[in-house]
Amino acid sequence: MSKSVVIEVTRGPVVESRHEGIAAVVRPDGAVVASWGDIDSLILPRSANKPIQAMAFVESGAVERFGLGNEHIALACASHSGERRHVETVQAWLAKVGLSEADLECGTHAPRLQGTIEELARAGRMPTAAFNNCSGKHSGFLTTAVQYGEPTKDYIKYNHPVQRRLREVMTDLCGTDANSFPYGTDGCGIPTLATPLKSLARAMASMAEPSRLSNKHAEAASRIRTAMNAEPFMMAGTGRFCTRINAALPGVAQIKTGAEGVFCGMLPTLGLGVAIKMWDGAGRAAEVAMASLLDHLGVLPAGQREEIVHPPVKNVVGLLVGEMRPAKSWLG
Amino acid sequence: MSKSVVIEVTRGPVVESRHEGIAAVVRPDGAVVASWGDIDSLILPRSANKPIQAMAFVESGAVERFGLGNEHIALACASHSGERRHVETVQAWLAKVGLSEADLECGTHAPRLQGTIEELARAGRMPTAAFNNCSGKHSGFLTTAVQYGEPTKDYIKYNHPVQRRLREVMTDLCGTDANSFPYGTDGCGIPTLATPLKSLARAMASMAEPSRLSNKHAEAASRIRTAMNAEPFMMAGTGRFCTRINAALPGVAQIKTGAEGVFCGMLPTLGLGVAIKMWDGAGRAAEVAMASLLDHLGVLPAGQREEIVHPPVKNVVGLLVGEMRPAKSWLG
Repeated sequence: MSKSVVIEVTRGPVVESRHEGIAAVVRPDGAVVASWGDIDSLILPRSANKPIQAMAFVESGAVERFGLGNEHIALACASHSGERRHVETVQAWLAKVGLSEADLECGTHAPRLQGTIEELARAGRMPTAAFNNCSGKHSGFLTTAVQYGEPTKDYIKYNHPVQRRLREVMTDLCGTDANSFPYGTDGCGIPTLATPLKSLARAMASMAEPSRLSNKHAEAASRIRTAMNAEPFMMAGTGRFCTRINAALPGVAQIKTGAEGVFCGMLPTLGLGVAIKMWDGAGRAAEVAMASLLDHLGVLPAGQREEIVHPPVKNVVGLLVGEMRPAKSWLG
Repeated sequence: MSKSVVIEVTRGPVVESRHEGIAAVVRPDGAVVASWGDIDSLILPRSANKPIQAMAFVESGAVERFGLGNEHIALACASHSGERRHVETVQAWLAKVGLSEADLECGTHAPRLQGTIEELARAGRMPTAAFNNCSGKHSGFLTTAVQYGEPTKDYIKYNHPVQRRLREVMTDLCGTDANSFPYGTDGCGIPTLATPLKSLARAMASMAEPSRLSNKHAEAASRIRTAMNAEPFMMAGTGRFCTRINAALPGVAQIKTGAEGVFCGMLPTLGLGVAIKMWDGAGRAAEVAMASLLDHLGVLPAGQREEIVHPPVKNVVGLLVGEMRPAKSWLG
């Protein structure tokens, strides 16, 4: 086992905080190109595997039947900020398939941006299930159930056909039986499967370079990659890391964050998949770790390298007080 | 060096995330009663040393001169949520000393609670500097400058008399020259001194059991402890850990959180001080670590032990999906 992923947070002359994690860079055949820490560890991918979970939706034919497009595929892969375009697109999508927000089983939480919260308050409105960061993924689940003529109720349960299909796809992509994975309940209510980090990275590699997959899987993976780059705003939202990177690297990288410090990425030009888990669950560190790996692998746009890999730490009045960075002990 | 502080976050059958840190339990003479990790490490106390920073304010005589009370002393020690009572008390306090929010140099950020953000938006108002979680501390700084006839401008600068006094008090309480500490800039603009964790715990012990201090210091420490328990809402706000614990343990514990995973506490009945730093900066873990130490030291109220030491992890719809807990490797 090699050294860990380490991200430092400085303030003035001091390293104030540090984050440790694990990372794997893997080929579609499972060969490990690079790794840090114990990549056999079971981790919960949380939302980082939404691109994998979107496969069955895209494969179902529902995109064509209901006249859906890249924005909907990207939303199915997204943890969005609940901004107006996200919410309205989800609402219109559900209407297209004969459903509504009442069918979403993901629950309701506040939108991410203070501005959206204020906008709702000024209008005397409350957030609805469409504001949930997972509402696009859930709309994909519901749409797939409609497409196959299955009951939509309880589509979040482990044994519903929607969830069973996710495990079948996961098994095909990562080369390990996902039905054997232990699981917890995700924030949005669906099972989140405890997956070896290495297998998660392999699933990403399979989507990045799908020549080993069935035609159906390969075509879906290609469409998902295209949608993630084509609709980066739908992947996350204003100012978000996933939006910035997926916008900056069309055809080169498709990345997705997950709760509790997870990050996944497809690198089709290199034929590689990447998976990262920061042990402490810190999203800020997972972002810097993903940025650092993209830089390490040579795919970051030159003009944006410094700011992406060393994001500033600012205080309340906007003064630069420190930075985040990969530790020398990791990639130095 | 003994084993680390370790806090686990579970989800279903899996430990999803884990946090590591250091902790020291120290007597006023500096004797270490218990420690985990390298407690000579330099850490930035951030807001966890606000009770120490309130000493010079209380010692100045300004409390009597301006008719201030426990609520103001607690606010000087607080990282408050910017709720109505916090904000209005700060505004009235500044008026009493002939100043206003315009004199605060802490900057403005959004209040902590979504409800407060919504309330402001509905009223068409913007948050002001009084909403800054540090506005009580800064009001204490300004009041002390007024009391001593010093210029109030630039009271956040390292060489302003206000900041110099903080370092004098810190030196007296922790037994090490605080003028020699490196420093960064805190979120609210003041210097935050890189302090050995052991020294921070000793300063807490000196305030908990101040018989070794000067009468002036001892009296101020006693008044600050009283205020922290008497006005726990002013210490933080609705639902906050500092508010709950300071309310639940009058005369027994006075605790204060700081950004980036720091926690400090005074335990006067035991004559001890406690300081904790979680390396990853996670506040959720620092809370569970403080709860675990309070339990370990036998001072938690029996009826509340379970919920305080093992807080539930719930998902969006409120389902119990996991818990946080001290790892067996730490206190098991």
